Amino acid sequence: MNLILLFPDDFTHGDTVCLRDRRRVEHILRIQKAQSGDRLRVGLVNGLMGEALVTETSADSIHLSVHLQYRPPPASPISMILALPRPPMLKRCLQTISALGIKELILLQSARVEKSYWQSPQLREEKIREELVLGLEQSCDTRLPNVRFAKRFRPFIEDELTEHVATRQALIAHPYASKPCPHGQTAPCVLAIGPEGGFLDQEIEAFSERGFTGVTLGERILRVETAVPYLLGRLSDLLPDC
Amino acid sequence: MNLILLFPDDFTHGDTVCLRDRRRVEHILRIQKAQSGDRLRVGLVNGLMGEALVTETSADSIHLSVHLQYRPPPASPISMILALPRPPMLKRCLQTISALGIKELILLQSARVEKSYWQSPQLREEKIREELVLGLEQSCDTRLPNVRFAKRFRPFIEDELTEHVATRQALIAHPYASKPCPHGQTAPCVLAIGPEGGFLDQEIEAFSERGFTGVTLGERILRVETAVPYLLGRLSDLLPDC
Repeated sequence: MNLILLFPDDFTHGDTVCLRDRRRVEHILRIQKAQSGDRLRVGLVNGLMGEALVTETSADSIHLSVHLQYRPPPASPISMILALPRPPMLKRCLQTISALGIKELILLQSARVEKSYWQSPQLREEKIREELVLGLEQSCDTRLPNVRFAKRFRPFIEDELTEHVATRQALIAHPYASKPCPHGQTAPCVLAIGPEGGFLDQEIEAFSERGFTGVTLGERILRVETAVPYLLGRLSDLLPDC
Repeated sequence: MNLILLFPDDFTHGDTVCLRDRRRVEHILRIQKAQSGDRLRVGLVNGLMGEALVTETSADSIHLSVHLQYRPPPASPISMILALPRPPMLKRCLQTISALGIKELILLQSARVEKSYWQSPQLREEKIREELVLGLEQSCDTRLPNVRFAKRFRPFIEDELTEHVATRQALIAHPYASKPCPHGQTAPCVLAIGPEGGFLDQEIEAFSERGFTGVTLGERILRVETAVPYLLGRLSDLLPDC
């Protein structure tokens, strides 16, 4: 937790904040070992970042006086369409995606995604938000990614995909594509990543017909949680992204 | 496990292999659901890759007839010097590093590495090898990375670092460096990555004095397990790497 993320409910009045949840209180007291008079790096969810003065601590609450003054880092220009990973992998992917500044994520059904994954408690709104918050707190950002579910492949592809491609470059990571994944994209871009085992050929075709270019990372088969940061490292240009 | 990695001891005679360890046997029977007559993708550790015909299975053994015929994917031209991560993070980093084709890894002590990490059972030779094997089996490669420990920072820097830089570009990832991390390195390169919290300024200086260039990934603070694939994605050129 390199930044304490604050929510509107944390504010008692004006710039005064009282934290009472165990996660943040324990982190600040036990890991950061903060005491009255110390300053912490904070950010308001979807808002500015700044500093907080610790004014009072007890075993289960911390009072802060907050001064928010600068913008969070720029968002990544990359939107991601990700075939829904296995729940434990999803957890780590959400943290990574959030930490790397992605602000638009669509979790997609595909033939090789087990339908049962959609029933996982990991997909509850509050669980997803928890992982996204961890990513923001790690990387020092405040803007929560927008996560949507596309639980049916065909309707999503047929009814919605075109709008995602309209003004952006569209790439689909595919081991058998002949074109290597490009480096350093500065323009907005949408990137689709398949499930373990990959998209089916006809799924790849459905993307291609709507303007997606297949790009490869080479012959190595990567786990989704490795492929996501690896692809984002390749695609990202430092200036707009970080 | 996209490839079954074989070891010289697995061969009973000629091209005949008998697997008896639970990990591989269970994977082949339960996950791959292989039966006599099926073909599996295999590779000999540090050797060729190819196909194996399943000739006999029982609950606790599998007999294979192996035909090794093609080379593993090219190695990454990147060598890595990594400040020793926390043991659970090390586990994942080793898998990622191995999956991404890195063949030379030095785990380094640095001021912000807790000394107790060096006592972790995770650092036993067989545990490290286990994680590296998982990475190779994931990405379909056979060549085990060479992992060395540098348990004392100064002696390593003073006595050994120069030889690592002699013929290669040398980069050190550092959040406060002004130069963005380059894209698509095709030439051999050595990359140093600090611990959580970063290298100390004087440690960065020690690297710089020996020819390392500081490169930044931007203002976001990444976990080591995210930074490793992100950096490798940026640095790797697809042709020699994958």
